[in-house]
Order: sequence, then C-alpha cells, then structure tokens
Amino acid sequence: MVPLDNFTFVLVRPLQAGNIGAAARALKNMGLRDLRLVAPVAWRGREAAAMAVHAADVLSTARSYDELAAAVADCTLVVGSTCRPGLYRAGAMAVREAAAQLVAEAVHNRIAVVFGPEDTGLVNLDLALCQRLITIPTAPEYPSLNLAQAVMVVAYELVMAAGTVRDLPAAEPYAPAAEVEAMMQRMSRALVAIGFLPADNPDHIMFTLRALLGRAGLGARDLQILNGIARQILWFAESGLQTAEAKRGAGKKLR
Amino acid sequence: MVPLDNFTFVLVRPLQAGNIGAAARALKNMGLRDLRLVAPVAWRGREAAAMAVHAADVLSTARSYDELAAAVADCTLVVGSTCRPGLYRAGAMAVREAAAQLVAEAVHNRIAVVFGPEDTGLVNLDLALCQRLITIPTAPEYPSLNLAQAVMVVAYELVMAAGTVRDLPAAEPYAPAAEVEAMMQRMSRALVAIGFLPADNPDHIMFTLRALLGRAGLGARDLQILNGIARQILWFAESGLQTAEAKRGAGKKLR
Repeated sequence: MVPLDNFTFVLVRPLQAGNIGAAARALKNMGLRDLRLVAPVAWRGREAAAMAVHAADVLSTARSYDELAAAVADCTLVVGSTCRPGLYRAGAMAVREAAAQLVAEAVHNRIAVVFGPEDTGLVNLDLALCQRLITIPTAPEYPSLNLAQAVMVVAYELVMAAGTVRDLPAAEPYAPAAEVEAMMQRMSRALVAIGFLPADNPDHIMFTLRALLGRAGLGARDLQILNGIARQILWFAESGLQTAEAKRGAGKKLR
Repeated sequence: MVPLDNFTFVLVRPLQAGNIGAAARALKNMGLRDLRLVAPVAWRGREAAAMAVHAADVLSTARSYDELAAAVADCTLVVGSTCRPGLYRAGAMAVREAAAQLVAEAVHNRIAVVFGPEDTGLVNLDLALCQRLITIPTAPEYPSLNLAQAVMVVAYELVMAAGTVRDLPAAEPYAPAAEVEAMMQRMSRALVAIGFLPADNPDHIMFTLRALLGRAGLGARDLQILNGIARQILWFAESGLQTAEAKRGAGKKLR
C-alpha cells in the first residue's frame, strides 16, 4: 500500500480563498485528500469553489483550526515548507530529496506538510512546531511560489516518490505532535527553571533543540525519556527553590 | 551553460487571465522567461497582473499569436502537454522521463512546450503540430490540472533536470517547426494526390505519420529528403493526371 492517505496538508492563515480552492484541486489531482486550515480567510464562498472545480469534496471536508498546534496534534511528523533562507530555516531539504524518505515514514506516521501565508510564509512561531523543513528549488531571482503552486509541487513529488519507494523499509512510528509539543514546553520550562534558558527569551535556544530532536524523530520511548528528564529538572528546581525559600525564611544566606 | 533560455512556453487559447498571470509567475520562479499566447482571452488587465505578482516582466513581454503554427514557427521541437488519453495522445511520456532528454536537446534547439485551454486541453488540430507529447502523472480520479499548475510542474521538472544533465551530450539541432509543418502539408497533399490518403479526411493517417516523424526528430537533411519525396510524388501524380487526361481526351480507356 502506498501510504499517501497518511499525508495531511495544512495551510496556515491563508489570505486568498482562491488559493484554498486551488490547493484542494492540486491535492485531488495527486490523489491526496486531507486538507486542514489554520485561521483562514473566509473561504466557504464562490471563489474557492471556482478554483477547486471538481475537488469540491476535498474542499468541503477541509477542517479549520485556531492554532497550528491543534491542526497537527494527531500528526507524528510535522514538515514545514519554506522558500526563505534564514536562521531557523537552515537545513531545509529540497523536496525531491525529502519525498522518498517522507513516503517511507508515512507507512507508520501521519505526516503534516505545513505551508505559510501568501505574504510572509511560515513565521518562526510556526517553524518551531515543524520537525523538518523542505524547500522547492527555484531561480534565486524570484523564490516565492504561489501558495497553491507550492502545494502542487510538494504533492506531485510525494506521489512520484510513492511510485518508487514500495521496497523501502517502513520507518518506525513517531510520537504525535501534540505529545512532542507538550514535552517541548515542559523541557523549556525546566531549562528556564534551572537558568539554562533566559526566562524572557527561551525560544531562541529551544529552536536549535527542537531542530535537533526533529531531525532525530521521536518515538514513544524517546518521548518518555525526555519527559522524564524535564520533570526531574522541574522537580529539582522547584524543590531546590523551596529549600532556598525555606532557608531564606530561616534567615540563612544562599550561596 | 544550462539551456533553460531555449525553452518557450505556449498557452493555446487560455480562457482565464488569472491563469496567464499565474503561469508567468511559475516561469519566473523557475528561471524561465519566454511566454507565448495563442488567441488568448483579454489579459492585459488587473487579473493577470495580480496573479503574476513579481513576474510582471515575463507577463508584459509575452507575445500573442493568432495560430499555434505561428507561435512555434521558430521552434525546432514542439512538445504538447496533455492529461487525456486518446487516439492521438498515445505514447505521451511522463514529464520526469521526458525532462532530461528535453534539456539535452535544448542545447541546440528552441523547444516549445504547448498547453491547451482550461476546458478541453489541446485538441487534435493542435496536437498535429506537436512532435512529442508529455503528461503529468495524476490520480485517475481527477487527471485535469489547473493550467498554471501544469505549467509549474513542467517548468519545475525542466529545472530539476537541468541541474543533473550538464554532462549529457548535446542533441543535434532539429529543423524549425514552420519548415516541418510545410513539409507535412506538402506530404499530405502528395499522399492525397496519389490516393493513399482520402481527400475528405487526410489527417487521420497523417497523425500517425506525424507522430512517427516527431519521435525521430527531423534534421535539415531529413527535411530535405522528405520534401524531395513529397515533391516527387506531387510531380508524378500531376503529370500522370495530365497524361491520363490527355489519354482520356484522346478517347482511350484508362486501366
């Protein structure tokens, strides 16, 4: 079985209803069906339907979410699509290179492929939820693709890869994004609590940590271990603080 | 030098100005520039420009023609894009397979890639001018891509191929389409004249002949020879007819 059913396409804050319809059509052209929208423009009108043409079913079953984290909560691998270079975008893989691996991973994982708004693309807060990044090679003069065009190229590459990867070993299942995100939040609080991360800007270093863990891919046992570490740090920091406060209450000086 | 400059994209009778703009953007994204339009909808307005965004230069330099034959007259290889199976569409090559060969041929040839209207795709009269056919693999449920999406996928495949074919030997130059078409017309008249083709429907069998010669690729010398054959047939048929008429005029019976 070619695991295309396990791909979910997520459009984050799309600004043009026509692009939502055109994306639905692109997915259906490629045999994909699961379209999700995060805080979209009003799109249940004529404009999206006109661009979807015979993909009205994909369009009408698209689900809306308030937040990207909610949209990808059941996904075990979240892949961001970006055309801009930048600090948090280093290491983006060309979509053709990434596609074969993603199809192999899709055997045992629900994979979200996430696209940003037409004007800005994915912003750093979105990218923080993406374990990997892909990019579509372009001419340097004009690297920004139309949103639905980008959806088409990625969907096309997945389908082309699916035709050639039947014999690859299936990759192991990863943990759901919601569980990974809960662990990341816990780890961030823990690292702030012990003063490793600055409380006013913990995300900068967390990006690197997220990228590292994202590349690795986290199974259930990995997650259990990382959660254990974060809880232990928090327990240590809080009990240490209590001790400190107790000591302070007792008039003793902390060093 | 990667020969992307030698690719020309031709939209035949496009019905939606937005698609013309979106196609211009797709070309510029991929570093391509030469867009030609055959009998297009009115497109020099806001709608196409809005979809072109930063590809206004590609859009404004697009040229319009009345006929496909005129649009591809200077091209030495004409490739039709089709998503429909059918009598005259058999043998269409998947675009990925075709791309590497096309890039190698583009070193010494101007190659037109031709796309039909949104509603029908290329019709048989258009396909007759195409020496080869390419197709984009899709889900069988919905094989018809948005016009600009199809342009994007083909342009993307050419660019991806251009990155990998630098070491291929350059293919020989083929004859310009206008010269090939003149030869085809001459050959058709010749084959009608000798009764090989029915005068009321010569095109049916000519399609097969066109496809055969298209696959071969016609150089200058090939064209010279084929023209020579057609002229010889015409001369023979006409002089034979004169002889027959002369004989008939003399009251003799033809057998």
